[in-house]
Amino acid sequence: MTAIHILTEPDLRAAVGLGDDERMAIEAVYPLISSGRAQMPPIMRIDIPERRGEIDIKSAYLPGYGGVAVKVSAGFFDNPSIGLPSLGGLMILLDARTGIPRAALFDNGYLTDLRTALAGAVAADHLAVPGATVAAVLGAGVQARLQLGALCQVRPIERALVWSRSASEAATFAETMSGELGLPVAAAPSPAAAAQDAQVLVTTTPATEPLVDLGVLHPGLHVTAVGSDAEHKQEVAAQAIQAADLVVCDHRGQSTRLGELRAAVAAGFDPGEAVELGQIISGDRRGRRSPDAVTICDLTGTGAQDTAIASLATTRCLEAGAGIRVDT
Amino acid sequence: MTAIHILTEPDLRAAVGLGDDERMAIEAVYPLISSGRAQMPPIMRIDIPERRGEIDIKSAYLPGYGGVAVKVSAGFFDNPSIGLPSLGGLMILLDARTGIPRAALFDNGYLTDLRTALAGAVAADHLAVPGATVAAVLGAGVQARLQLGALCQVRPIERALVWSRSASEAATFAETMSGELGLPVAAAPSPAAAAQDAQVLVTTTPATEPLVDLGVLHPGLHVTAVGSDAEHKQEVAAQAIQAADLVVCDHRGQSTRLGELRAAVAAGFDPGEAVELGQIISGDRRGRRSPDAVTICDLTGTGAQDTAIASLATTRCLEAGAGIRVDT
Repeated sequence: MTAIHILTEPDLRAAVGLGDDERMAIEAVYPLISSGRAQMPPIMRIDIPERRGEIDIKSAYLPGYGGVAVKVSAGFFDNPSIGLPSLGGLMILLDARTGIPRAALFDNGYLTDLRTALAGAVAADHLAVPGATVAAVLGAGVQARLQLGALCQVRPIERALVWSRSASEAATFAETMSGELGLPVAAAPSPAAAAQDAQVLVTTTPATEPLVDLGVLHPGLHVTAVGSDAEHKQEVAAQAIQAADLVVCDHRGQSTRLGELRAAVAAGFDPGEAVELGQIISGDRRGRRSPDAVTICDLTGTGAQDTAIASLATTRCLEAGAGIRVDT
Repeated sequence: MTAIHILTEPDLRAAVGLGDDERMAIEAVYPLISSGRAQMPPIMRIDIPERRGEIDIKSAYLPGYGGVAVKVSAGFFDNPSIGLPSLGGLMILLDARTGIPRAALFDNGYLTDLRTALAGAVAADHLAVPGATVAAVLGAGVQARLQLGALCQVRPIERALVWSRSASEAATFAETMSGELGLPVAAAPSPAAAAQDAQVLVTTTPATEPLVDLGVLHPGLHVTAVGSDAEHKQEVAAQAIQAADLVVCDHRGQSTRLGELRAAVAAGFDPGEAVELGQIISGDRRGRRSPDAVTICDLTGTGAQDTAIASLATTRCLEAGAGIRVDT
């Protein structure tokens, strides 16, 4: 007799959040990606144009890990008109030794939001100047909130700026996050104004035209771009990538296909010049070389992160006795 | 508030089986495949060689269907040594209008076994001689049992023969199935001996060397091959495919890559000569042209069948109040 554990969003929110252990769990996967030890098949995608819907399926096997996560993400952009969220998803965790399903994680996308924010903190931890005190975020949604919170784990942030296409959302973000983080957060009138005093800039938008152009860069700035995950999206101008002292990505192939490297390579940037985050974490390649360097890191998101966060969340839920056990 | 229904193998076995409605649900997907209306991304696969394990993920969107199934199949061939089955799996059914998960079907592979057997009956129904009274199966496992049962739905089978590499499994099969179907089932000493008097032959083995060679064919025989679903498997000799009067497959591309057409094409068979089952079901192409024709149908299995059977099973379970409802 085997059993599967049914875990819901409240179970998972109680189990994992913006903690050091969670961040280290995410950090650990990048060297597996860069060394080719993570087995990550290409993303499976189904488009349902008549509903403005898309379903993405990711998975990854990491040698030594006890579980393999299969993640199903759904984005249905007509949902808000019927009172439902656009984005959702779930993960299944299979036992990597037997293939038997261990847990179904009905997280409604929470674990993806979380692992994406933790990846941003990992990138900043390895690339931003150590004493960074000013942060800026572009976008004012869930991911912007989580990125700013995660960044505060790894850098002594004293104040933050936010820019959004919607001034009212930026204002709400500033007010909410000031209270939540206990530090001043202000809305800025443009991406350049947000970035002006910042040492760390995180972009979290679905932009299809670059927001970070050459004029936004200044000595000592680190940029993490997490928004682009599809061929038509772009947050960072090709010229900015070409001008940076160091360009980093989570997965070179994926970033070249779906991320910020796509437009840069089309404009002549050699993808071989981009370093993978795992190479820096493992010490194979150097990260920031000077306080004045401009560094840019593109994160497209990987199934390896899903396997890592689903494994940790499931372990914690089982330890806590959370969820429903169903005999299968 | 949304909710997901957790359905277990007993729920699903009670809901769907070898019935006419189930067979017609499977039949209906083939014209969608052949006309290009089914959206079926390539199978995602992860190999875990240190456990002799493989994880396959299939999905399909069928226009007009309310659900999209995502199927995770696992085959871990060291499992029997620790008392676990080699094969397992589950399906998730998403709402095709919103992307929201509606049901998790922990079927342990039952729905795959069932839809594969139903597909065999669909193929026989369209290709075997109408008055077929003698059936033969190669292999004596779960799929052989289901195929024989499904075939009896569509043809007036009066007796059956079984061949297996394991003579004792063939003997057990013959005894069990004689009782279950209420007709004589006998073990045969070779594939040719099993097929000799049969009008329908179904091959259900994981063979990597052909079992059905030219000598097994005789006028009026229909062969359905369901075993091969990977590059290294083969049940039907290339010469037998080349000699048949009509060669049919569920999906030309997949059969050429993973099924019986692979070796045949390598031996010079033109894949354009193979007809898709959906073309025959829809009336676009003719099936059997004479009582003496030899017909061969290769079924590799498709995500479209998974979406069809998962949709039907979920609807029936919800109508019956089966399963566990979990608010997500």
